[in-house]
Amino acid sequence: MEIKSYKKDTFYSYTLGAFPTIELLKNHPHHVIKILIHTSFTNKEVINLILSLKGNAEIEYNDKLINKLSPKGNCYIVGVFKKYASSLDSSKDHVVLVNPSDMGNLGTIIRSSLGFGIENIALIRPGVDIFDPKVLRASMGAIFSLNIQYFDTYDDYKKAFPNHIKRTFMLQAKKTLQETKFDKDSLTSLVFGNEATGLDHSLLDENSIIISHSDKIDSLNLPSSLAIALYEFTKQKKI
Amino acid sequence: MEIKSYKKDTFYSYTLGAFPTIELLKNHPHHVIKILIHTSFTNKEVINLILSLKGNAEIEYNDKLINKLSPKGNCYIVGVFKKYASSLDSSKDHVVLVNPSDMGNLGTIIRSSLGFGIENIALIRPGVDIFDPKVLRASMGAIFSLNIQYFDTYDDYKKAFPNHIKRTFMLQAKKTLQETKFDKDSLTSLVFGNEATGLDHSLLDENSIIISHSDKIDSLNLPSSLAIALYEFTKQKKI
Repeated sequence: MEIKSYKKDTFYSYTLGAFPTIELLKNHPHHVIKILIHTSFTNKEVINLILSLKGNAEIEYNDKLINKLSPKGNCYIVGVFKKYASSLDSSKDHVVLVNPSDMGNLGTIIRSSLGFGIENIALIRPGVDIFDPKVLRASMGAIFSLNIQYFDTYDDYKKAFPNHIKRTFMLQAKKTLQETKFDKDSLTSLVFGNEATGLDHSLLDENSIIISHSDKIDSLNLPSSLAIALYEFTKQKKI
Repeated sequence: MEIKSYKKDTFYSYTLGAFPTIELLKNHPHHVIKILIHTSFTNKEVINLILSLKGNAEIEYNDKLINKLSPKGNCYIVGVFKKYASSLDSSKDHVVLVNPSDMGNLGTIIRSSLGFGIENIALIRPGVDIFDPKVLRASMGAIFSLNIQYFDTYDDYKKAFPNHIKRTFMLQAKKTLQETKFDKDSLTSLVFGNEATGLDHSLLDENSIIISHSDKIDSLNLPSSLAIALYEFTKQKKI
């Protein structure tokens, strides 16, 4: 099997670097096809860890292929894996991203979500491809610890999880996050819109929230807003 | 005067796009040298606003130069300005960034700081150049509303502002942000380290803070950490 540079419609993708490859092996060993190791990589501890985790995955020393897959260089370990689907846990809180458009942002958001223990993320199409190597890199492997499920529309998501209270984050909201008391006993969806356009006005309701900020800026950036929301939400849940 | 692509040691820099150029004109009219307008730009409202703000700045229609300065295209307004120095206000709270290394991150942090009303930022060298067009773009013009001052060392900063309580954000800290009560009557510096290396261990003391997160991630990313800290700090200050 010949490994080519990533395209959205291929059945496989790959991690660039030791750290995300180890996260891949720990969380999805059965999806790993092959581990590529650069001949100049000599960290025995890392190699031994990879060998102990690799299961049935093939090991291949192939500098040329690594350089092709990682045009920026400075990459010594690549994990090639079969893309997989996962399903959200209906008994947990969710993050919902409607039409996210930036790969770096999505990776950062995935990392923050795992950091605050929200391990189920819904993505509403159209949106960036979670298996693009740029997203995998920005998430630093966090993506392999989460359930991430795509939905064609926000309505499809709502129908699938009717019991979650949808807290839509919108600049038009009346209630600020600073004054919001989350209901600790309810299941909650923290819902965020596209980087440029936000959420559609039709989603504004009594559960909508704005992170209050000065009118000297248009808005906070999306990963920062998410990080703040995750912080406040999980802080209240734990008390 | 011939305008060339940005270099750190030139005495001028430039904004790319109408929005940051307007912020530049509103906040630093006397530093503006020239406004470049693309001949295909026909938004009269924006052009009239620029003309009303331009002061003594020259207007030049120069598509070739705009294309040279904005290699990614999609830019119709450029504001060329003389770089300037600003000084921190000793009567206000500060954000302190020790050795920030990523231009996009710095722009995002500047935008968040303005959003939460912390309008004085210290940068400890070595660190990225605030006037690099990439930082200006990521800040979306927020940079022009803030005081940003460089210091050669963190000690220099501390000597300049001895009365500020330094709250160093460090993964080794014992106290979590979630449990921190900020002293509303004190001047505070929120201090953050480099993206990869954090703050030096020697800065750990009883005022150090960690944003508590799951051990499934190494750390939150820097702009997300800053956003969370700014949110919590300003929330407490306003109550």
